[in-house]
Amino acid sequence: MAVNAYDFFKAANLDKPRDTMKSKVGSNVTLINVMQLPGLNTLGISLARIDYAPLGQNPQHTHPRATEILTVLEGTLYVGFVTSNTDNGNKLFAKVLNKGDVFVFPQGLIHFQFNPIHDKPAVAIAALSRQNPRAITIANAVFGSKPPISYDVLAKAFQVQKGTIDWLQAQFWENNHY
Amino acid sequence: MAVNAYDFFKAANLDKPRDTMKSKVGSNVTLINVMQLPGLNTLGISLARIDYAPLGQNPQHTHPRATEILTVLEGTLYVGFVTSNTDNGNKLFAKVLNKGDVFVFPQGLIHFQFNPIHDKPAVAIAALSRQNPRAITIANAVFGSKPPISYDVLAKAFQVQKGTIDWLQAQFWENNHY
Amino acid sequence: MAVNAYDFFKAANLDKPRDTMKSKVGSNVTLINVMQLPGLNTLGISLARIDYAPLGQNPQHTHPRATEILTVLEGTLYVGFVTSNTDNGNKLFAKVLNKGDVFVFPQGLIHFQFNPIHDKPAVAIAALSRQNPRAITIANAVFGSKPPISYDVLAKAFQVQKGTIDWLQAQFWENNHY
Amino acid sequence: MAVNAYDFFKAANLDKPRDTMKSKVGSNVTLINVMQLPGLNTLGISLARIDYAPLGQNPQHTHPRATEILTVLEGTLYVGFVTSNTDNGNKLFAKVLNKGDVFVFPQGLIHFQFNPIHDKPAVAIAALSRQNPRAITIANAVFGSKPPISYDVLAKAFQVQKGTIDWLQAQFWENNHY
Amino acid sequence: MAVNAYDFFKAANLDKPRDTMKSKVGSNVTLINVMQLPGLNTLGISLARIDYAPLGQNPQHTHPRATEILTVLEGTLYVGFVTSNTDNGNKLFAKVLNKGDVFVFPQGLIHFQFNPIHDKPAVAIAALSRQNPRAITIANAVFGSKPPISYDVLAKAFQVQKGTIDWLQAQFWENNHY
Amino acid sequence: MAVNAYDFFKAANLDKPRDTMKSKVGSNVTLINVMQLPGLNTLGISLARIDYAPLGQNPQHTHPRATEILTVLEGTLYVGFVTSNTDNGNKLFAKVLNKGDVFVFPQGLIHFQFNPIHDKPAVAIAALSRQNPRAITIANAVFGSKPPISYDVLAKAFQVQKGTIDWLQAQFWENNHY
Repeated sequence: MAVNAYDFFKAANLDKPRDTMKSKVGSNVTLINVMQLPGLNTLGISLARIDYAPLGQNPQHTHPRATEILTVLEGTLYVGFVTSNTDNGNKLFAKVLNKGDVFVFPQGLIHFQFNPIHDKPAVAIAALSRQNPRAITIANAVFGSKPPISYDVLAKAFQVQKGTIDWLQAQFWENNHY
Repeated sequence: MAVNAYDFFKAANLDKPRDTMKSKVGSNVTLINVMQLPGLNTLGISLARIDYAPLGQNPQHTHPRATEILTVLEGTLYVGFVTSNTDNGNKLFAKVLNKGDVFVFPQGLIHFQFNPIHDKPAVAIAALSRQNPRAITIANAVFGSKPPISYDVLAKAFQVQKGTIDWLQAQFWENNHY
Repeated sequence: MAVNAYDFFKAANLDKPRDTMKSKVGSNVTLINVMQLPGLNTLGISLARIDYAPLGQNPQHTHPRATEILTVLEGTLYVGFVTSNTDNGNKLFAKVLNKGDVFVFPQGLIHFQFNPIHDKPAVAIAALSRQNPRAITIANAVFGSKPPISYDVLAKAFQVQKGTIDWLQAQFWENNHY
Repeated sequence: MAVNAYDFFKAANLDKPRDTMKSKVGSNVTLINVMQLPGLNTLGISLARIDYAPLGQNPQHTHPRATEILTVLEGTLYVGFVTSNTDNGNKLFAKVLNKGDVFVFPQGLIHFQFNPIHDKPAVAIAALSRQNPRAITIANAVFGSKPPISYDVLAKAFQVQKGTIDWLQAQFWENNHY
Repeated sequence: MAVNAYDFFKAANLDKPRDTMKSKVGSNVTLINVMQLPGLNTLGISLARIDYAPLGQNPQHTHPRATEILTVLEGTLYVGFVTSNTDNGNKLFAKVLNKGDVFVFPQGLIHFQFNPIHDKPAVAIAALSRQNPRAITIANAVFGSKPPISYDVLAKAFQVQKGTIDWLQAQFWENNHY
Repeated sequence: MAVNAYDFFKAANLDKPRDTMKSKVGSNVTLINVMQLPGLNTLGISLARIDYAPLGQNPQHTHPRATEILTVLEGTLYVGFVTSNTDNGNKLFAKVLNKGDVFVFPQGLIHFQFNPIHDKPAVAIAALSRQNPRAITIANAVFGSKPPISYDVLAKAFQVQKGTIDWLQAQFWENNHY
């Protein structure tokens, strides 16, 4: 079938609040990428709405091949990213964002957004520099992989006892897989 | 001075309506690019808020090196782009967008957004796949260049009498330069 | 079938004058791209011969993803492009080219070539930085799209009365589609 | 001063074992990038030797813009990476590598190398697809950033009590910064 | 000084025959790259006129980062390139080109153009997919480098006696450097 | 079948010496590219072990789209590359490398590695900035192409008598194809 305007269009309802109740971390990402919008193919960009419950967050994660630029539509967000390893590295660059503010998360860096207000939700619009940005949530990759990473690897990496890793993994697994 | 979180932040007030009264075409583009937000350097993305007066428009233009993805925050937009020359080319791909809808304008194609409602403004958020996307407004490039393009060139291109070009240029010039 | 030298070869007759009589604008572009020359695949370049009738032109157009470099083989050309929007933008960069001169049209900018001589044809060789450069002719995209762009959109963009747009579109349509 | 052969050369002693005693995690990465070897500029590649103590590891980390390919010179390594989030994501792809084996860690994914042998060191040569690949060690970015990320953010992300985060950060900080 | 039309223009006289008498191999390449035409900067294309004496040639060479597309303006050319090493590699793809024919030399492959006619010159226009394509002439790199490559290296590579290499280098040096 | 860890793994035995006896030039390249390791797809890197017999060499060649970085595991290598044509070009950048040294061969330049020791083999590990780097051996492309390049072309390029080319080609052909 011929390409037409509908390939470049998505009735995405990005104006509508999303449910953040089913999320353990209190957030919901609605991503419009090349799967929803075939016309994005080869064009290197995508768009998302992110809803945050009161005290909810989009937890530490990276996009392995995309930069993200974000603006706050509603509420307040505490956001940040951590720089890479160097003599003076692992710096946290963080800011409180109010409505209308803009922030950038450079490609591949670990970042988060947190709603610090206990009684009001927050909403952001974010754009990503890939038609199909993927996301790697750190907690999932560390404690929630399938199969789990062995205690020996994690214990030394995080410099805790094996028992602690055991307990962290069990707790994470219980919270996420049941 | 060392790079810090402020290089990745802009208090851009993207939540605030912009004045569309001073614009001949009834629109106002607030672009947050690498000039406003130095941290965007090399990262290949930027963000904009666009305000449309009732019956206002962001007139036919292209971004020579950027794709644009847009979502409607308020109001209604009639948007479209025209495909390139081929045996079956120069097709208009157009759609009416309501709040929350998403549309894509592929790199380098001529496109527009028009608010068809006579008594309500419209607002959109758009992302572009360059840290410094430029824009070429067609009417400016055709009838408003400095110095003007000669009548001989334009008359045959648009297949009208020289007098018509004369009149169009004079009218455009008067409306835009005084 | 195995790849061989014929995949990298085209008996393109680029030395032979082309007919410019059938063109409303008095020009004829003979493009050798990846469709004519499969060996160009992934290689990012193509070549064209352009013939111009006396007073003929290659009217205002853009290549959404390609830069063009051109040299004049025969005759004289008045060529130019218009820069993008900025405080000091929409500048016309134009030159008269004689045989052997070279000119560059940067990616995505609106440009034209015009033969200003009333009794002699002109010929150019142009190279483009894509294996399949497309072209967007401005007059086609503005007044000749299928379906036409609505009067409301064009009238304000070009800052003329609706009746003028009506008349321009009708005239363009009549000249190009019959 | 003129460029010469020394700009493309480094007496890097990559054949010599490195000290792994000073490392909390029992590894030592000797990276030859554009800083050591100016001739790499614009060339998009670099090389490293990695030494692993018995039971040592190169802990979970990512290269935000580089893929890594590795071969084992001495000893045994248990290596792996975790895929990104999807319905069926967060999969651990892991293997035991013996001398002479080759493994790939795709750009931006979290990966590790662990020497599972209690009485023998291991050595690997790795190449990275950037002239200046950076690395983000997950434990550093999560628990060791300067300043630390707030308990509120980490507790919900890892789904543990604030007290646990407090204890993990203190432990990590003590082990790494004194 | 501000950029203007002259930055995109070069009075290159590409219509004028060049002297091929001073060339040992009977050819003369007039390249218009970013050095002659500053407006080419970042645009990834350049243009050349090549003159060939009767029985002259543009000897085996490569462009390390550019593809070349060529059309014959005058005369006849025997052109070719050799594919890379594979089980079925090192194939010569060659063709006789007449006026108006087009041929492609893919990036990095060794290629040549030869005028097989003993009493007529030839002329070609070539475009290259870089603003500053470099060229590596094989004979120069093998027998004419400064300082010369040692006999031991060349003798086995070309599988001849050291005395042969000695004689070839001396002959090449004499012909090119005095 | 689903992707799994085996797509990113190759039991390549890069620790094992390769036979250099069957090679006319006394070397053996074991390349692990995307054909051996499907997980390399789109990732732009590959790895090789190179064995050199006493007085053996990896003769003058280029990688048309890849840079190479190399470290010596065993023995001694005399390596070099030749710069491109310029007023001051065709320079040989060469070095003797000992165990543990690192050297870079920039994309597309002609380079070689030679084991100058008459009684000891050498071994190197090299990484290339492509998932499928190809190689063009100069002697093969000049004297060993199928079909051979005509004497007329080669004689003037190398500035020797036709008889010399005849003899060189015959000798090369005999050594390589029987």
